[in-house]
Amino acid sequence: MEPKENGSELGQIIDGPTNPMVTPLLNDLYQFTMAYAYWKAGKHNERSVFDLYFRKNPFGGEYTVFAGLEECIKFLANFKLSDEEIDFVRDCLPGSEEAFCDYLRGLDCSDVEVYAIPEGSVVFPKVPLMRVEGPVGVVQLLETPFLNLVNFASLVATNAARHRFVAGKSKSLLEFGARRAQGPDGAISASKYCYLGGFDATSNVAAGKLFGIPLRGTHSHAYVSSFMSTDEIVDKVLRSADGKTTCEDFVSHVQTWLKKIQYSPSLSGIFSETNQSELAAFTSYALAFPKTFLALVDTYDVMKSGIPNFCAVALALNDFGYKALGIRLDSGDLAYLSREARNFFCTVERELKVPGFGKMVVTASNDLNEETIDALNKQGHEVDAFGIGTYLVTCYSQAALGCVFKLVEINNQPRIKLSEDVTKVSIPCKKRSYRLYGKEGYPLVDIMTGENEPPPKVKRKIILSKVLIAFYMIYFLISKVGERLLCRHPFNESKRAYVVPQRVEELLKCYWRGSADEAREELPPLKEIRERCIKQLENMRPDHMRRLNPTPYKVSVSAKLYDFIHFLWLNEAPVGELQ
Amino acid sequence: MEPKENGSELGQIIDGPTNPMVTPLLNDLYQFTMAYAYWKAGKHNERSVFDLYFRKNPFGGEYTVFAGLEECIKFLANFKLSDEEIDFVRDCLPGSEEAFCDYLRGLDCSDVEVYAIPEGSVVFPKVPLMRVEGPVGVVQLLETPFLNLVNFASLVATNAARHRFVAGKSKSLLEFGARRAQGPDGAISASKYCYLGGFDATSNVAAGKLFGIPLRGTHSHAYVSSFMSTDEIVDKVLRSADGKTTCEDFVSHVQTWLKKIQYSPSLSGIFSETNQSELAAFTSYALAFPKTFLALVDTYDVMKSGIPNFCAVALALNDFGYKALGIRLDSGDLAYLSREARNFFCTVERELKVPGFGKMVVTASNDLNEETIDALNKQGHEVDAFGIGTYLVTCYSQAALGCVFKLVEINNQPRIKLSEDVTKVSIPCKKRSYRLYGKEGYPLVDIMTGENEPPPKVKRKIILSKVLIAFYMIYFLISKVGERLLCRHPFNESKRAYVVPQRVEELLKCYWRGSADEAREELPPLKEIRERCIKQLENMRPDHMRRLNPTPYKVSVSAKLYDFIHFLWLNEAPVGELQ
Repeated sequence: MEPKENGSELGQIIDGPTNPMVTPLLNDLYQFTMAYAYWKAGKHNERSVFDLYFRKNPFGGEYTVFAGLEECIKFLANFKLSDEEIDFVRDCLPGSEEAFCDYLRGLDCSDVEVYAIPEGSVVFPKVPLMRVEGPVGVVQLLETPFLNLVNFASLVATNAARHRFVAGKSKSLLEFGARRAQGPDGAISASKYCYLGGFDATSNVAAGKLFGIPLRGTHSHAYVSSFMSTDEIVDKVLRSADGKTTCEDFVSHVQTWLKKIQYSPSLSGIFSETNQSELAAFTSYALAFPKTFLALVDTYDVMKSGIPNFCAVALALNDFGYKALGIRLDSGDLAYLSREARNFFCTVERELKVPGFGKMVVTASNDLNEETIDALNKQGHEVDAFGIGTYLVTCYSQAALGCVFKLVEINNQPRIKLSEDVTKVSIPCKKRSYRLYGKEGYPLVDIMTGENEPPPKVKRKIILSKVLIAFYMIYFLISKVGERLLCRHPFNESKRAYVVPQRVEELLKCYWRGSADEAREELPPLKEIRERCIKQLENMRPDHMRRLNPTPYKVSVSAKLYDFIHFLWLNEAPVGELQ
Repeated sequence: MEPKENGSELGQIIDGPTNPMVTPLLNDLYQFTMAYAYWKAGKHNERSVFDLYFRKNPFGGEYTVFAGLEECIKFLANFKLSDEEIDFVRDCLPGSEEAFCDYLRGLDCSDVEVYAIPEGSVVFPKVPLMRVEGPVGVVQLLETPFLNLVNFASLVATNAARHRFVAGKSKSLLEFGARRAQGPDGAISASKYCYLGGFDATSNVAAGKLFGIPLRGTHSHAYVSSFMSTDEIVDKVLRSADGKTTCEDFVSHVQTWLKKIQYSPSLSGIFSETNQSELAAFTSYALAFPKTFLALVDTYDVMKSGIPNFCAVALALNDFGYKALGIRLDSGDLAYLSREARNFFCTVERELKVPGFGKMVVTASNDLNEETIDALNKQGHEVDAFGIGTYLVTCYSQAALGCVFKLVEINNQPRIKLSEDVTKVSIPCKKRSYRLYGKEGYPLVDIMTGENEPPPKVKRKIILSKVLIAFYMIYFLISKVGERLLCRHPFNESKRAYVVPQRVEELLKCYWRGSADEAREELPPLKEIRERCIKQLENMRPDHMRRLNPTPYKVSVSAKLYDFIHFLWLNEAPVGELQ
């Protein structure tokens, strides 16, 4: 998995995509047949502009997190067909002329420009996430890989953000999905983009290594079942945390604690015999990891066996200066069991005088998703960390995002894609887009304009002086009229609003201008992208974010662009005849 | 993506996994913490047996196609941690002893055995798809990668099989999902396993190259919109198919045909002016691909523009010995439009005397899935080929399969995993499994037995001789009693049945016995796996396969195994106390 160098000789190098299988052949065949047909018609170098956008927010929500941009730029910067790949393409296009292979051989992205919204931004339908400009022959070959790299990345980042929203800021969120993900990089990229969307850690070691994501994991049920009894533990010695003392028989020490718990006044009667294979497993795991002891307590019975066994081991560790981390629950009524476990821990703290024991971390896993976490919140629970797998990484409640890549201009001619379904009509022209912020600091509306329209103006800040107050009041009224901006729904004539923005942010920034050396936005580290995402999500008006019946965020076009869209639409659409 | 060599010096080499990101680090961290804890406890070499199986068929159906085995074996055969990977694992396990790294360094699968049901088989819940045996330390490290490689592969292969079932044998099924798949190998492996499950082709060039899957694709809406008028076509020359004649102005020739269609008696009035940019796009595409002309006809208006334009180009091609392939519909009422298109083609064939023109292939795409194809069937349609993307490759209606990997035996001691949810209790013991076939040739039931139980006996074929008829009647009665086999539901006492199998097939075959050179089943080419899958699906009793309310296929255990499961269960489960 050596990063490929791009053609640049000036110095800057952008590594290739994380997955070496992302090559120009990760493409629909029709991109190559079109490339050939463009080339055959002498059109392959016509300057084209394509927008990459989606039409509908996922998961019944009103926002999306944009992710996948870095991988697109890495792909683009290293875009080059190998001879072997060209041979294969030739075989796929029987009858094609040999000179086309020469064209493919020379193909790279040195004449392509990519403008994009920064990765980790909160984004909305219809507004281009990326605007890709360049010779139509090569840009067409970017469609499938870009869509593939953006669709799942944005979907799973959004899913992570939604899980964070329902779990709340104070909880730890752990992604545990590797085994159920849609293939190997379904797993690895889910880990990456869940972290981006606000998760704290992953169980996926490869993702930890590739992206520096914190890793989490302890043991499974199999580990517990693999033991039969404590007799199996041969090396029973535990050195204390400070290295000063040694416990020669940690197993007996644990057994002693188990008895103490069993017969302590408030805990007696809760359990009798605990499962000995479980006790053996916990003890041996603690001997291996005395500093980070965390046990899965539901292999046999949480309250009658798992919790008492865990407490015995944790208390034994405590005698030698080690603080156990906590437990994981992987089945049953998580709200009830977490509360019972917390009670047990607090009772131990009180009765056996072990300060802090009640604060043991309770981790819950087992088919969690937005709905189950919401239900746990309503029932009341004592869970500190959620381990979420299947529903998170496969985006079970909506397994695909529908980003599209549409031609909006060629040879300076705006193009529109019509459809009987209005939501599928594309917004033509090479465009700019802006996010307008209101008085309270929340984003109010996104607006698209033609490339050459003047940018929206910010409301000027007027410091009122007492003397000039009357004058300024008149000035203010005029200026407000001057600055207010008409934002129109792109397709619905009656939906429009005047906006006086307090702040204007241009959304599309240049990420590629032909080479890694040309002035462009840097690709920030994943951690920074994650921080942007968290900050942007926190800065949204709460009614856009709520799970139930959220308010749609407004997306608009300028009055000028609106008129042009409808002019073009009428021009291209055939007039029907009713018979 | 060089295939890695495995350790064997004897000759046979098994290539590494298709995706080079599939390494031992594609794993949950807890597999490594457990490996350390096993090693620390001196248990790492204890002989363990794990079963890989699922608990519920996906998509509300009653069958599943098993896929992903080849990738598992490729992974296993090349299992080796690099020094860099070991360094990373060391960093993940603070406080671990250095000697553990030496253990990891020496780790491979030379002491592992894998028995599995052949890839492409129809399989059912609870029956092990794979039985993995070996030292617990290393087998535990196979859990996450195996599950990752089997879960999505089997899910998407099953989804493909279900789409084939509803579309029928005579239709072409094309996988078009690359852009919406869950990441790059979500796309590539979806292409592979959809082909395995009965699809005919893919649009994914990388998958075509890697696996030899037939490729399909022509052009998109962008190609159509990229043209303004036929004036753009500079090179208008078309050589005839036989090379004998040349058309100097193919563009005019197309225009002539368009007029002829427009004014032919039965077609006049259907359309007036067609869209000229579309006509230009079709003409130029035909000049590039005269032998394989297929046009996307819904960019402007299918019946008023797309179909007439297509016919004009197809008829013009026909004059020079080329047969157009057909059209693609990507929006609107596909049932209605496909019928209208077919009528148009048939009218052209009749009116303009072009034999075979009515048989033009109609391909439909646009968010198709099982339900929409079923609805099209009910409405009546003229679609010959379906291009299916999003819903197929992301398994939208159920995005994950829940295969698990459970310890069933360690050190010759059977292990059971209990759960309050009976469906989650594991079936202990190293087991064999068999498929029993009935009189009509259909599979009747799968049965699991202990490893050392005698295999089920086939009903002997008795040729009755007239003389011995009385004797044989008695013998037959006795023998029938002797051969009939009690099949028990593993957890439901009252569900049991006697079966007299006409044929018995042992399901688990050896795919790995420590090295590529040891006797084992070959890994067949994808095409053979696909044929096995199609044959097995066709051989299922129809009521198991129907979409609505299918009959569950029976999965059972032998009487002996049943008794043992319940003995172990009672032994392990704590006795509750009601207070």
